[in-house]
Amino acid sequence: MTNELQYKDCIEACHEAADASNICYVSSLKEYDIAMLRDCIVLTRECAEICSFTADAMSRMSPFASDICSICVQICEACAKECEKHAHQHCKDCAEACRRCAEICSNMCCVA
Amino acid sequence: MTNELQYKDCIEACHEAADASNICYVSSLKEYDIAMLRDCIVLTRECAEICSFTADAMSRMSPFASDICSICVQICEACAKECEKHAHQHCKDCAEACRRCAEICSNMCCVA
Amino acid sequence: MTNELQYKDCIEACHEAADASNICYVSSLKEYDIAMLRDCIVLTRECAEICSFTADAMSRMSPFASDICSICVQICEACAKECEKHAHQHCKDCAEACRRCAEICSNMCCVA
Amino acid sequence: MTNELQYKDCIEACHEAADASNICYVSSLKEYDIAMLRDCIVLTRECAEICSFTADAMSRMSPFASDICSICVQICEACAKECEKHAHQHCKDCAEACRRCAEICSNMCCVA
Repeated sequence: MTNELQYKDCIEACHEAADASNICYVSSLKEYDIAMLRDCIVLTRECAEICSFTADAMSRMSPFASDICSICVQICEACAKECEKHAHQHCKDCAEACRRCAEICSNMCCVA
Repeated sequence: MTNELQYKDCIEACHEAADASNICYVSSLKEYDIAMLRDCIVLTRECAEICSFTADAMSRMSPFASDICSICVQICEACAKECEKHAHQHCKDCAEACRRCAEICSNMCCVA
Repeated sequence: MTNELQYKDCIEACHEAADASNICYVSSLKEYDIAMLRDCIVLTRECAEICSFTADAMSRMSPFASDICSICVQICEACAKECEKHAHQHCKDCAEACRRCAEICSNMCCVA
Repeated sequence: MTNELQYKDCIEACHEAADASNICYVSSLKEYDIAMLRDCIVLTRECAEICSFTADAMSRMSPFASDICSICVQICEACAKECEKHAHQHCKDCAEACRRCAEICSNMCCVA
């Protein structure tokens, strides 16, 4: 019961982090200071890929959902940390969504 | 402006259809009449894969989002048509989410 | 240098395990004894999803490739163990490809 | 029989194009002239995503494999066209793998 609700929240947080990462990724590639945003571009793509895969894994009730969530926590924290270095609004938004996703996913790792 | 809102609705509809397809998939595999649900199992997995990929494509603003949406319409309709043959609640729920996703995605194909 | 070659072998092993899992999945869904193959169907899909994601992660040189490989080892072993219970040729072929992938991926976890 | 062999070749060509695209993507992000490579970065990621999804679709014998191959042809041609504008070796290698994949996939669209 609890788990099913937690899954739903966690899937949603992963989708939101993936979307924010993709928006930040697309926007960074258009910025004048693109050369300063290399790590941001690498990590936002990586974060979008892993968050989306994590949401899919929970959606199909994968027996490995908990392990996958724990990787998701790591990439979300790495991506947020990088995005927090930059002043662009898309970086701030991405950092916020990733911090939130990391927090919700880290609960998942323990209960699942 | 309009497009961005439509994207958001369409991404959400794809996620909902993917989730409903996965729930129907997992539940069908546990049913007593599994032998009657072969096509349902094939199509719900296929639908989950394509809906998730379609949502990802829109999320990263793929230049091929419109073409991908048009494949999503086809699988959602095929999946709904199959699920409507069965009396299980998870089949009914899946058919409903897929019909809705097909409708919203078909608007995407035209405007994008 | 060594790592790049190891990556290439590991990516290939993941693709082969994913393909064998999908063949086993599709074939199982057509078998007369489908009701005996429920776990096989669940695990071959799961294995195909995770192997493909693992290959993609190595292909884009993900900083999380090693962690993802370690999940790949687990699902490949679980899938092989289940497939070894069944007499179908597609199950035997799948088990073999998964055992091989698990072995190669487990080297990856240590070196990466 | 013929189709199965063609599938195998086409899956392999998709994997090679995805790998070449990812190598070009990762390398472009490290180049001094990154600002000249914005479109190359966008298209190589897109190409990697779509080639990988196309290979997966063929691997699970998706009824939509032919439609998905036709999108794969388009992105491979777009990516090759962009990469051919640049002198970097990774761009040349990527263009070559994408041209080959487009050719093989376009046969798939007709036979499937």
